[in-house]
Amino acid sequence: MKDVQHYMADVGKRACVSARHMARAETGLKNDALNAIAAAIENSAAMLIEHNARDLEAGRQRGLDAALLDRLALDESRIAGMADGLRQVAQLSDPIGEIDQLAYRPSGIQVGRMRVPLGVIGIIYESRPNVTADAAGLCLKSGNAAILRGGSEALHSNQAIARCIRQGLESAGLNADAVQVIETTDRAAVGELLRMKEHVDVIVPRGGKGLIERVMSESLVPVIKHLHGVCHVYIDDKADVAKAVKVAFNAKTQRYGTCNTMETLLVAQAIAAQVLPELVEKYRDEEVELRGCAQTRDIIAGLSAATDADWDEEYLAPVLSIKVVADLDEAMEHIHRYGSDHTEAIVTEDFHRAQRFLREVDSSSVMVNASTRFADGFEYGLGAEIGISTDKLHARGPVGLEGLTSQKYIVIGDGHIRE
Amino acid sequence: MKDVQHYMADVGKRACVSARHMARAETGLKNDALNAIAAAIENSAAMLIEHNARDLEAGRQRGLDAALLDRLALDESRIAGMADGLRQVAQLSDPIGEIDQLAYRPSGIQVGRMRVPLGVIGIIYESRPNVTADAAGLCLKSGNAAILRGGSEALHSNQAIARCIRQGLESAGLNADAVQVIETTDRAAVGELLRMKEHVDVIVPRGGKGLIERVMSESLVPVIKHLHGVCHVYIDDKADVAKAVKVAFNAKTQRYGTCNTMETLLVAQAIAAQVLPELVEKYRDEEVELRGCAQTRDIIAGLSAATDADWDEEYLAPVLSIKVVADLDEAMEHIHRYGSDHTEAIVTEDFHRAQRFLREVDSSSVMVNASTRFADGFEYGLGAEIGISTDKLHARGPVGLEGLTSQKYIVIGDGHIRE
Repeated sequence: MKDVQHYMADVGKRACVSARHMARAETGLKNDALNAIAAAIENSAAMLIEHNARDLEAGRQRGLDAALLDRLALDESRIAGMADGLRQVAQLSDPIGEIDQLAYRPSGIQVGRMRVPLGVIGIIYESRPNVTADAAGLCLKSGNAAILRGGSEALHSNQAIARCIRQGLESAGLNADAVQVIETTDRAAVGELLRMKEHVDVIVPRGGKGLIERVMSESLVPVIKHLHGVCHVYIDDKADVAKAVKVAFNAKTQRYGTCNTMETLLVAQAIAAQVLPELVEKYRDEEVELRGCAQTRDIIAGLSAATDADWDEEYLAPVLSIKVVADLDEAMEHIHRYGSDHTEAIVTEDFHRAQRFLREVDSSSVMVNASTRFADGFEYGLGAEIGISTDKLHARGPVGLEGLTSQKYIVIGDGHIRE
Repeated sequence: MKDVQHYMADVGKRACVSARHMARAETGLKNDALNAIAAAIENSAAMLIEHNARDLEAGRQRGLDAALLDRLALDESRIAGMADGLRQVAQLSDPIGEIDQLAYRPSGIQVGRMRVPLGVIGIIYESRPNVTADAAGLCLKSGNAAILRGGSEALHSNQAIARCIRQGLESAGLNADAVQVIETTDRAAVGELLRMKEHVDVIVPRGGKGLIERVMSESLVPVIKHLHGVCHVYIDDKADVAKAVKVAFNAKTQRYGTCNTMETLLVAQAIAAQVLPELVEKYRDEEVELRGCAQTRDIIAGLSAATDADWDEEYLAPVLSIKVVADLDEAMEHIHRYGSDHTEAIVTEDFHRAQRFLREVDSSSVMVNASTRFADGFEYGLGAEIGISTDKLHARGPVGLEGLTSQKYIVIGDGHIRE
């Protein structure tokens, strides 16, 4: 325990020193490092697969389930994916140093804002080792130092990736401590990380609800996180039925395990009998389990009943709850009560209602006539994302490079003083 | 205690309900309310002065010092100042609903960001009753609900102002709970406010270090704050001496009690003998107490020695510590070590060094050839400020209307789905 404390304090101090170097690092050097890390990862494919095999073997012995083992596994294509991701981040424009809104004030001074790194970013994640490379890339490009703590089941894989990162940083002449991957599986290290207010500027947890809740309850450092995604599609009675079916089907079935997948479908009473039969048939073809309110079950035979618990549930699975509502107001009321502030969509041809939904629904992404599955950093043009925030302060929605930065004011005068 | 808990829970719930109304309130209505509150305050001048007299009398009996009694006092001119402030906020453009960067993505959807209120803002402040009107105005214009907790010594004044606010909100047809002023002086109410994560989105403490430290250590709600302002001016050896004297004199003496006042002057060795004698003479004319490092004292006779504690100190008084440094790097190192991330200025004619200072100094405001006293919401063109943040997440520097808002993503499609 004492050792973990010392170890983490040392990691924190190194990160702080490194953060000052990184804040000043030239764009070209950061891109060189990203490309060098990508090359090191590709060139080390055999080594990475070998270390990953040790994690997989240990996982099998500990009885990890197939889904978890799959997430843990690295193969040639996933390794190429990590390298590609880093090269893509190298291509993004550098947010650091950008000056915004620089303008003269009546006093004669110029005032503007300059984009700057946050400093030290702690990222806590679970089994997928590719997060090590992805997170390192985003922190590096945004001029931050990173402390990465992956799942203990991926320790060997993460350490092997860490060596590639260090090699890339060194070959570009950047401080090798800019990305530190925690070397201990002791859970106390996470606790230490969450208490290092002096050394860490923000924590980004990536993983299941259990991890996020632990981070939320323990962290003394500010956290960028989303807890869960109970996303809604509301089919208004002024909806185009074909668009409604297309959007509601895609929002549920395009992928089940993602946080932007629809979990509850709300349908206006006046259009329910028209749109539900066709939709339900399509869901049944995909073997989606449907749970309906009383009115839904009046229209569709053989549905199981949705209980109150269903409206709160993030299934992350081929399960959908359906509720018939009177109108837009009831839909928005339901979303306000049960939603998780992640992503909500309305399907309507009515301009006024679309405008109201956009304005009044208080979620990190609010959509009209589009699938909730679009809520994603790549789809939004951020280039990459470190996560999705459902909080209101700082970043909201998909968090890309900009979410890992802040803006300071700059003032330029020529001997100006305040009268 | 039980009563305070119930009372605060009720305040929190009302604020949440009101926040949803306020988020939708039209700009015209919000401006009407601001102007109506201004009128109510002016028309109630006699009543306000009467209630304020009770606070002043109680303060005198409790032995408050003259400075505190002065801060607490309301007169015709301060009352007119509150009304003017509210009318100025009415004139500012409404940030809510502003849509930014709306653009088509390759998938065919349009993605942009819409500015939205934070929700419920808790403001904790000390003796000055005009903060009640100022804070209410900013929260109202930015579409938030406010819970205001003023100093117990200003209770009657604040309650009287609260009645004017309520009257103005009602006359404009807005929810009267949009601004709630806590009616109890029980300190437990502050503790409750800091724990109401469910009902409060952000806390803004305004006051001395004791208050801010209490808020920081107890709050479960995110806080926008600055702890203290140890601001520096660095006179580079490439400075124009006349500008340096002007800026360094103004930064210290224009006002002593403000957080953007310079507390430590750093002077490059090569210019110290040239600039210090003239500056010191000016400071001495103003009876500023000077404390110098050994090198400073070699140049200026009769100075007391600055100790290590001086570099950490926010004097808020006519006291200044002076240190001679070798060069820009030593100056930035000193600022990094002792600064409070508030406001730092360099005086130099050297372009490269000015650029380095702007880029490398990690403070909420960084200046070239301008007095630190400019770090202020009005001077920066924000129209008004609720405080100055030295944090890195969310708002940094002077916090105006925009700092009380957030941005959500909006997505517009026409039946678009993710492939």
